[in-house]
Amino acid sequence: MASPLSASTLQPLVAQLNADYARALDDDRLEDWPAFFAEACLYVITSADNHQRGLPAGVMYADGKGMLHDRVAALRQANVYERQTYRHLVGLPAILGDEDGHVRAETPFLVVRIMRDGRMDLFATGRYVDVLADEDGALRLRERLVVCDSSRFDTLLAIPL
Amino acid sequence: MASPLSASTLQPLVAQLNADYARALDDDRLEDWPAFFAEACLYVITSADNHQRGLPAGVMYADGKGMLHDRVAALRQANVYERQTYRHLVGLPAILGDEDGHVRAETPFLVVRIMRDGRMDLFATGRYVDVLADEDGALRLRERLVVCDSSRFDTLLAIPL
Amino acid sequence: MASPLSASTLQPLVAQLNADYARALDDDRLEDWPAFFAEACLYVITSADNHQRGLPAGVMYADGKGMLHDRVAALRQANVYERQTYRHLVGLPAILGDEDGHVRAETPFLVVRIMRDGRMDLFATGRYVDVLADEDGALRLRERLVVCDSSRFDTLLAIPL
Repeated sequence: MASPLSASTLQPLVAQLNADYARALDDDRLEDWPAFFAEACLYVITSADNHQRGLPAGVMYADGKGMLHDRVAALRQANVYERQTYRHLVGLPAILGDEDGHVRAETPFLVVRIMRDGRMDLFATGRYVDVLADEDGALRLRERLVVCDSSRFDTLLAIPL
Repeated sequence: MASPLSASTLQPLVAQLNADYARALDDDRLEDWPAFFAEACLYVITSADNHQRGLPAGVMYADGKGMLHDRVAALRQANVYERQTYRHLVGLPAILGDEDGHVRAETPFLVVRIMRDGRMDLFATGRYVDVLADEDGALRLRERLVVCDSSRFDTLLAIPL
Repeated sequence: MASPLSASTLQPLVAQLNADYARALDDDRLEDWPAFFAEACLYVITSADNHQRGLPAGVMYADGKGMLHDRVAALRQANVYERQTYRHLVGLPAILGDEDGHVRAETPFLVVRIMRDGRMDLFATGRYVDVLADEDGALRLRERLVVCDSSRFDTLLAIPL
C-alpha cells in the first residue's frame, strides 16, 4: 500500500476479503479462488502441531498462483468436491502488523461439512495466518497458512480451506 | 433509501440487523421477529438443492408480515419451541448490490440446537439471501430466503431461522 | 469514558476486544487473560437456566483480578489445560447501553474442543453478558457473565471461556 493504513482501517478490508473468500469456496466457485492471492504467493494447509514444531506442511502446499490453478483443475477432474458441500464461518481478524506494505493478520475459522445425505459435521477449525499486500489496487494474499487445530486429517482435506 | 449508500456503509448496518435478528430468536423473543421485516415481505426456508433447481420451498413460506405473526402464534400454541434452545452464529454479510433503494445481501449462518438435557448438535448451516430496504427510517427485510445447506430437515425446522 | 461514545463507535471496539480475548485463550496464553479485565471485576460462568432463575453461578466465580490470576495458576499446576485445545468463534456484539462510562454489551459465542487424538466436538455455546469501562485508556471488562446455553457442564469447564 502506498500509504500506511491503520489497523482499524485494515480490519474491515481483511474481514471483507475473508468473507468473499469463504463465499467463493462455499458456492463451489473454485475457479475464483486463486484470484484472492497475489501472483507470487504461498498457500499451505498444516496442523497446529506441525506449525508449532516448524515441521513442513503435510496436507497442501502451493508456491505461486499457478499451483493454485493446478490444484483446482485436479479437484475438478477428480470430482471429489461434488460429493459434499462446506460452510465456512470466519471470525474477526486480528491485525498483527503492517510493515513495508505487508499486512500480517490472523483470523479464526470453522468449517462444517454437509454430506449428500444431509448429515453435517465439524470438518475443521483453526486460524488463517496471513500476509497481505496491495496488488493492482486490491488487497491480496501473499501468504496464507491454514493452521488447523486438529491433526486428524481426512484424505479429502486436499480441498482448499 | 433516499440517498444511495456504499457497500462499506451498508455492511455494518446489515451486520447489525443480522445480529439483532439472531439475538431475538435465541432469546426466544419470537414476537419481536416480524418487526425485522417490511410490511410487504417474503420469508422462505428452503434447501440449497431446491433453491438451485428453482423448486418451491418445502419448509416454510410466508408472504407478508401477517403470515409471520401467524407463524409465531402457531408456534406458541404448539409449544414446540420450548423444548430446546438455539444459538445462531452469523458471519459477515456480502453486499451484492444496491439499486432503487433495494439492497441485496448474502450472509452465512450456523445454528446450534441445545436440547433440554444439555446435548448440543449442529442444527443448520446455510446462507441468508436477502433483499433489504428502508422502511420508516430503518433497514428492514423485504425478502429473506433462508437457504439451508442440508436438505435433511427436522420436522421442528418449522421454527424461524 | 470521558466523552460518551455512540453504539456504532463502540461496536468495533467491543468486537476487537472479544477477538483478542478469544485469541489469547485459543493460543493458550492464559497469563494474558486477566489483562482484559478491570482491576475491580466480576467473572462468572453460569448456565442460561441458572441465570434466568437468578441462581448463583455453579461453574466459576471470580471477584477481582487477583482471583483470575489464581485461577490461571491453578490451571497451570493441574495441567488439565494441555490435554486439548479450544477454538472460539465470536459473533457480533449488541451494544445495549452506555451510561456513566459503563457500556453494556451482549455477544454470542461458540467454542469447539479439539482432543489430542484430533476429535472435535461442540464444547459450549452461549452469550457474553458484559459491562465494560475505560481503564488506563483501554476498554476493559468490569463484568463478564458467561451464560452457557447448556447446563450439562463438563468438569473441565473450569477453564476460562
